Amino acid sequence: MGTNYFNRDDRDLKFVLFEYLDIEKLLSYEAYQDFSIEDFSMIIDEALKVCREVIGPTMQDGDREGCTYKDGEVKVPASFHECWKVMAENGWMAASSNPEFGGQGLPATVGGLIGELFAGANMAFQTYPGLAIGNGRLIENFGTDEDKALFVEKMYTGVWGGTMCLTEPDAGTDVGWLRTKAIPDPEASDPRVCKIEGTKQFITCGNHDLTENIIHLVLARIEGATPGTKGISLFIVPKIWVNPDGSMGESNDVYCGNIEEKMGIHGSATCTLNFGENGKCRGILLGEPNSGMAKMFQMMNEARMGCGVQALGLTASAYDTARLYAKERVQGPLFTNRDADRVPIIQHEDVRRMLMNLKAGTEAMRAMIGKLFCFIDIHEHEPDEATREDAGFQVELFTPLVKAYCTDFGYRLIRDAIQVLGGVGYCSEFPVEQYARDIKIISIWEGTNYINSLDLVGRKLNMKGGKVFQGWIEGVMKFTGEHQDDPDFGPDFKLLFKAAQATGDFTMRYLDYFQKGKLHLIPLSCTRFLECFSEVLMAQFMLEQGLLAHEKLQGVDAESADGIFYRGKVETAKYFCRNILTNVFARHMALQQEDTSALDIPEEAF
Amino acid sequence: MGTNYFNRDDRDLKFVLFEYLDIEKLLSYEAYQDFSIEDFSMIIDEALKVCREVIGPTMQDGDREGCTYKDGEVKVPASFHECWKVMAENGWMAASSNPEFGGQGLPATVGGLIGELFAGANMAFQTYPGLAIGNGRLIENFGTDEDKALFVEKMYTGVWGGTMCLTEPDAGTDVGWLRTKAIPDPEASDPRVCKIEGTKQFITCGNHDLTENIIHLVLARIEGATPGTKGISLFIVPKIWVNPDGSMGESNDVYCGNIEEKMGIHGSATCTLNFGENGKCRGILLGEPNSGMAKMFQMMNEARMGCGVQALGLTASAYDTARLYAKERVQGPLFTNRDADRVPIIQHEDVRRMLMNLKAGTEAMRAMIGKLFCFIDIHEHEPDEATREDAGFQVELFTPLVKAYCTDFGYRLIRDAIQVLGGVGYCSEFPVEQYARDIKIISIWEGTNYINSLDLVGRKLNMKGGKVFQGWIEGVMKFTGEHQDDPDFGPDFKLLFKAAQATGDFTMRYLDYFQKGKLHLIPLSCTRFLECFSEVLMAQFMLEQGLLAHEKLQGVDAESADGIFYRGKVETAKYFCRNILTNVFARHMALQQEDTSALDIPEEAF
Repeated sequence: MGTNYFNRDDRDLKFVLFEYLDIEKLLSYEAYQDFSIEDFSMIIDEALKVCREVIGPTMQDGDREGCTYKDGEVKVPASFHECWKVMAENGWMAASSNPEFGGQGLPATVGGLIGELFAGANMAFQTYPGLAIGNGRLIENFGTDEDKALFVEKMYTGVWGGTMCLTEPDAGTDVGWLRTKAIPDPEASDPRVCKIEGTKQFITCGNHDLTENIIHLVLARIEGATPGTKGISLFIVPKIWVNPDGSMGESNDVYCGNIEEKMGIHGSATCTLNFGENGKCRGILLGEPNSGMAKMFQMMNEARMGCGVQALGLTASAYDTARLYAKERVQGPLFTNRDADRVPIIQHEDVRRMLMNLKAGTEAMRAMIGKLFCFIDIHEHEPDEATREDAGFQVELFTPLVKAYCTDFGYRLIRDAIQVLGGVGYCSEFPVEQYARDIKIISIWEGTNYINSLDLVGRKLNMKGGKVFQGWIEGVMKFTGEHQDDPDFGPDFKLLFKAAQATGDFTMRYLDYFQKGKLHLIPLSCTRFLECFSEVLMAQFMLEQGLLAHEKLQGVDAESADGIFYRGKVETAKYFCRNILTNVFARHMALQQEDTSALDIPEEAF
Repeated sequence: MGTNYFNRDDRDLKFVLFEYLDIEKLLSYEAYQDFSIEDFSMIIDEALKVCREVIGPTMQDGDREGCTYKDGEVKVPASFHECWKVMAENGWMAASSNPEFGGQGLPATVGGLIGELFAGANMAFQTYPGLAIGNGRLIENFGTDEDKALFVEKMYTGVWGGTMCLTEPDAGTDVGWLRTKAIPDPEASDPRVCKIEGTKQFITCGNHDLTENIIHLVLARIEGATPGTKGISLFIVPKIWVNPDGSMGESNDVYCGNIEEKMGIHGSATCTLNFGENGKCRGILLGEPNSGMAKMFQMMNEARMGCGVQALGLTASAYDTARLYAKERVQGPLFTNRDADRVPIIQHEDVRRMLMNLKAGTEAMRAMIGKLFCFIDIHEHEPDEATREDAGFQVELFTPLVKAYCTDFGYRLIRDAIQVLGGVGYCSEFPVEQYARDIKIISIWEGTNYINSLDLVGRKLNMKGGKVFQGWIEGVMKFTGEHQDDPDFGPDFKLLFKAAQATGDFTMRYLDYFQKGKLHLIPLSCTRFLECFSEVLMAQFMLEQGLLAHEKLQGVDAESADGIFYRGKVETAKYFCRNILTNVFARHMALQQEDTSALDIPEEAF
């Protein structure tokens, strides 16, 4: 058993869930009426305990041991087996899933927020249950009753694993180019069964020894279907065939050709999978033919939210490592008192600044992710149709922000955590360097961050003819108008106003570019737009939290644990606005240049 | 022999050296009069060849094999031995060193710029010769004739290795706290010989099997000396004692206790060294007692410039990997033409943007580093005293910028290189993920980047009563005044003007903070000041290069290799100003907030 470095404090998580978000509203929904705040609190405490005692201690071991490949079979790090067992037996895997199939039926908000803990305890391990659940949900949503009966409960309860098989060697971002074929099998008793042939690459958890079976969801083109994304279908392809009575059949001709050596997440097997090399691989069509991309997008969207959760989990764990180290480590005097004694480095101004980046960054991400999951619950359970519909649009709008912003932001923040530890941070005893290696993949998978920026600009901005975005920005403006003279946060609301204006200016210009045929300016700047939008959104949430903390401070002793937490929250909200939100202005200045040098330069000059 | 991924193009390096910097002036100096431009050009070509054929192919091997430790002895990756042999036999190690002791006597400018190639080919390997040379130079500068005769040539020619031993477990950034003792030895025939006792940590190249001996330069306190940095002396401590006649004596009681597991530079041994555990370790005082910090600072300053060179080397290699991959890899159509065929991703707008970040970033770093080394040559060889003195101040001013800015910037840029390669970039086949791991140490060692920011603000800004900085900023203002209506770069000069103003505002405020006792605002913002200053400086150089390229374009065919290079340079200068220099405005906006939330927050809130 390795050393545990998972040391999350539950205070901010509980603040978000019980004080900031409208938990009473969630509890009023029929689906959640059997739960209470005490239940959720106990669940969080239990999750923290499992993370500290079971999952956390496997993180470094998993990194060092990694996965091993031999003759098509993959072994995960030894300690992962115990994690899997504990997660499965205690229902942690499918915390928010449908109880009909063995899930715990928790609100998405609770499940999403505790997801941060598991990802922060061991992200590499968490990929295995994460994919099994996402995969199971797709079958739950689109499968026949028979499919559901065969697969879903087994995936929610940890009996079988799952994958999503999109990428091929020649079709990554360009998924429509995929070559995997599905050949209708006249001999099959079920007309939905096809033969599958093709190679998938970079398949996370593509093979492993945690479960007796792995259910692959494979994108393939039925012979003769249209080229491009419109001719892609989705197939359930078990590693070992499952008979109609639920018993295991024969091996299904899915061969793992190798696993990748990677920068991080060494415990998560990244596989090349060959389907039907011997002509014996069978898959079951999920839903209608040629509807595969739309269905996969449901899983993809959930996975994109999951990316934000992973990024938050790793960054928050890096923050924990850094803040605890900084409280212990004694070096040199303060800049403002060079002749005094040496002090713990948490008192050093620049260390403090970096810790504030980490604190403000993680809390802002947690706020944004909490809001997103809360909108999911409202969208799924709210009786009022208009509110439900609106929440759905918010989910759509926020998803690319949570995916792309948190993953790049987390990478930058973990750099600060390494820096706080200094030379020790570069060495492997403490896991901050591992967090930096683990997090980097998240800006690439589930659609690169650029693809998510395009999704924001191309699909999300013009939802309801632009009214969703417009409604949000009007809300921010109203909020700043109400509080611009706040004695504590006045300057911050002024910054928020300006930053929201700058963010709005992006969309005005984009409209203009669309109209005037200056389309090329959009892909050159859309990652920046996504970043501006995210920072304004997070600043809005941080100020909401700051105002709330300010109010709560009236009722508590300033030196009590709660008092210190609320005072911390007030300063953190200010810090976010004055030091992170301000980045909007650089990106806006760049936007105003309408620079095309990157396209004007001759290709041969690179 | 591993795969070579070193693919540097020599064009920009030769542009900097032969077209941008005043190479004729350097050649006019007596010390360099035997060289010609052709010589330098041939030397660059040869260096590129050695990097491609000998050093480059060991980079990935070195990372995977790493160093091994057993019973005090350290083995470097096997392939490093051949690199060392080739470097030593061909005089590459001491390219710019004194020919009297076996150096090649090249200008610092040439040595510094080819240093980028070696670091970019295999940074981990390069630490061994780098430390041997820096160490030798210190002995050359401060040793007695006897010391010089015994050690210097052996270090310049690769017979012996070297280290700098500052850090101890309890004294990192706070080096004045060190505990290593030097005890005068009444039995020694030479009164400069002391017994050394103590433990040094994180000693790069502290033990290895590349050379028969390693000469450690050790900071220690002579018994009874003042506490703090003022009581520290510097000692030459050979791993194996060297007799006055140059023959090797007995082992000198220096024991390597372990080597660190690290994020990167696996081929570079990071050692804990125990000196005098058996009371038998001897060191020779270098220079006067209690003058150790000042002397070590000479090596430290050179090492800080070396940090910039390392960062440039790694970033430029990451850029090479990314640009070559992007030219080969075909995926999807352009954003502006969704129905067209798929194209090489170098044509994709966002990939192009990231490649421009890498191109503009590396060229700007190369310009800044070239300027710095050129000032060293001027400072050392210029006959005119005022010019010589001024160049010395420029060296002082630029050193922290080159150290701190390039290392953090490089880390951010390599992120883009990974992103260009996508999933492949996260895997270890291509070395971009290794560059990201290797570069991270450079922002920590040789004084963290924060320490370098303090050096800039505390020591460099007030050189000559502030006139050095003021002279520089006036020069920038004059430059922008002359070119603000340039038909090509007009908007860029306007941005440069504003950015220089913002940078100047930092110094005005700092003056104010000093006067009004608001000192605490300085360490909270000085890393940002350093970044602003660096970006303005680099923008200035990029615009100088852009103007020059524009002029040169008049004399060449626009489609020739030179024509394409110059056109590329013009666009790159614009890109830098419009997309990177613009970051100054976010930092300046943050500065204007004079935010103290990071200090106001209760420590317990972390």
